[in-house]
Amino acid sequence: MKFFQVKSVEETQKLIHKMVKPLTEAITMPLDHALHFVLAEDITVRENVPNFRRSSVDGYAVRAKDTFGSSESMPGFLTVVGEVKMGQVPERPIQSGEAMYVPTGGMLPDGSDAVVMIEHCEEISHLLNLYRQVAPGENLISIGEDLKEGAVLLAKGTKLRAQEIGALASQGIHQVSVWRKPVVGYLSSGDEIVPMESPDLRMGEVRDMNGATIGSLVKQWGLDFIYGGIVEDSRDELERRARELLDISDCLILTGGSSVGTKDYSVEVIEALGDPGVYVHGISIKPGKPTILSQAGIKPIIGLPGHPASAMIIFSLFGKPILDILGGGSVNHLRLTFAKVTKNIPSAPGRTDYIRIRLFEENNEWYAEPILGKSGLISTLVKSDGMLEIASESEGIHKGERVPVILFQ
Amino acid sequence: MKFFQVKSVEETQKLIHKMVKPLTEAITMPLDHALHFVLAEDITVRENVPNFRRSSVDGYAVRAKDTFGSSESMPGFLTVVGEVKMGQVPERPIQSGEAMYVPTGGMLPDGSDAVVMIEHCEEISHLLNLYRQVAPGENLISIGEDLKEGAVLLAKGTKLRAQEIGALASQGIHQVSVWRKPVVGYLSSGDEIVPMESPDLRMGEVRDMNGATIGSLVKQWGLDFIYGGIVEDSRDELERRARELLDISDCLILTGGSSVGTKDYSVEVIEALGDPGVYVHGISIKPGKPTILSQAGIKPIIGLPGHPASAMIIFSLFGKPILDILGGGSVNHLRLTFAKVTKNIPSAPGRTDYIRIRLFEENNEWYAEPILGKSGLISTLVKSDGMLEIASESEGIHKGERVPVILFQ
Repeated sequence: MKFFQVKSVEETQKLIHKMVKPLTEAITMPLDHALHFVLAEDITVRENVPNFRRSSVDGYAVRAKDTFGSSESMPGFLTVVGEVKMGQVPERPIQSGEAMYVPTGGMLPDGSDAVVMIEHCEEISHLLNLYRQVAPGENLISIGEDLKEGAVLLAKGTKLRAQEIGALASQGIHQVSVWRKPVVGYLSSGDEIVPMESPDLRMGEVRDMNGATIGSLVKQWGLDFIYGGIVEDSRDELERRARELLDISDCLILTGGSSVGTKDYSVEVIEALGDPGVYVHGISIKPGKPTILSQAGIKPIIGLPGHPASAMIIFSLFGKPILDILGGGSVNHLRLTFAKVTKNIPSAPGRTDYIRIRLFEENNEWYAEPILGKSGLISTLVKSDGMLEIASESEGIHKGERVPVILFQ
Repeated sequence: MKFFQVKSVEETQKLIHKMVKPLTEAITMPLDHALHFVLAEDITVRENVPNFRRSSVDGYAVRAKDTFGSSESMPGFLTVVGEVKMGQVPERPIQSGEAMYVPTGGMLPDGSDAVVMIEHCEEISHLLNLYRQVAPGENLISIGEDLKEGAVLLAKGTKLRAQEIGALASQGIHQVSVWRKPVVGYLSSGDEIVPMESPDLRMGEVRDMNGATIGSLVKQWGLDFIYGGIVEDSRDELERRARELLDISDCLILTGGSSVGTKDYSVEVIEALGDPGVYVHGISIKPGKPTILSQAGIKPIIGLPGHPASAMIIFSLFGKPILDILGGGSVNHLRLTFAKVTKNIPSAPGRTDYIRIRLFEENNEWYAEPILGKSGLISTLVKSDGMLEIASESEGIHKGERVPVILFQ
């Protein structure tokens, strides 16, 4: 049996980045199902966008030098020689002294090199009065200005958001190679835990609320979740059921049984599931100290504390980056924000504290109001928007200090 | 035909809150499919949580007054009379002078009123040395302390996140009454727009990237999306197809055709779809001025500008709250953050500007780096994390100023 020193949050994060490897099984996905998948290939630009010189305003295509010197007090004059229709090639080029109407997005006729906005001129029976001059290139988008043929449009490892899906669509790419998403298995252990559906509780029993919370987070992160049920307190049974579930999943979550109580064999079971085995047992964090992180081959195993709030906080903090890396993507930094605290919060140095908070806004600033309560409390979770971090070297934070907040979403 | 004055962003938001009404069609949903649905009923607490006095630490259940005066230098002594097992009722009450081992989450024996943490005492053959005193109620969670029977657990209108699903599970509630989610229909108009799958483009053509972007946002927000295809520039055809799609959806999105160009009949078509009709035509905003907001009965209709970045910005800004309200929930405020800008950005007063930005972190502060580019550019969208707001009365923002940022996620 290995012996473990309690790790700091920073050490734990470093170990996660060192230990967890991406699954990297590429699958082909139709674009309209590819949202939130991670690209398994670089995508290069196939066609220049735009593939023609396009007006960025409603106006008149002109030669810029024909407009030089035009102003409200000294208008210039040009001859209007037609109109460009959306989606169509202009009927003819323009010559010096000529202008052609072009709508936003319309193609510029040859010979033109700028567009005068409709607001800055006036057409009176084919004569255009110009009240402003334009520079060459003004109010147009040139060929390839947006996307240049051959350039990398999206790099391997990019998580596809709405705008990336749009960018791929603009290139006519309707299927992409992406990494298969991890499947997450979950097992709850403890004699006191009963199925969520149990109508009545006997004294001392609690329903498996962690299964519901952790399962919802996994689904919210876009991954498949296998609920493996509840295992009674028996070392052999826990190992058998954990092995079964690990066989059909890419990552295994266990809750309960990870505190230093009398019947704590979950760390032994997790260790027995495969090499390299447990690399974190105990984190200097509150709540959630008895967390276990392990790996059987490339499959991460996470032993969460049984208290609902601790389980959710630890899973948000460490489970999310583990699953992000396993899925082949980078860790999403936008769940992080910063807020000023509304009251003093004491903290013990040598340990990172996470305090559930409610956020409110005032004068372009987030304020975090601590929701104080014991770590097992469901009610504090329901009231909270996220959690605030008190760094391990700190003895607490003062009212008005700005601190990092991780959003629950 | 109605005439419209361009509205400010604030006026538009007020009108949205006034015009858009929730769908309020209640459906029954199994709890494990209820994530991100909105509750159609108040949920009251059915059972106290905990339903027994529970220890919040590993330790010994005691009478607090037996510990008074105990310290490292002057330890107290108690007799250990047994052990409470997880999920089981203690075998007997304790008397004065006695202590009973209780694990975290275990039930306190009658007669005890506090728990001494295992770290603060030492058991030597049934004799417990106490190195600290505890107050009555210390290290325990009393009956109903977390959730009190009869109290409102979750109010009607609450959007169910992971923690709410967990709270419902803890109460043995395995199905809930929620509002049906809105179905969103989408139609693209414009002669230059061709299907996303088109392998080759003729001069002047662009693929329907907006369908892909808007569709992805709708799906990301958890709603069903019906892609209605592309309509060529014909007033009658647009009206016919829009009516067809509106019949089978709860909200209709149209893109393109909303600028003040020559062939602009989209506002007429939208107005013709039903009363009360168009309530916003033009917003003093950049990009996205030619936005149309309307309502046919209780069905919202949104006319988006055709430029991809404008369409996405407008849909994020106004489409999201419209769909949040339509779905019976409140507007999610957590897409908002605040950041300091990295450079001066000029802006015209009288118009709210939205600038795409990339966020980076430094010293507990978000910094927003503007991604400058024309509003039609796909590349700027792909590079951006969100958009920064410059208020309409402002002439711009200075480097280092803190401003609101709406995240693209």
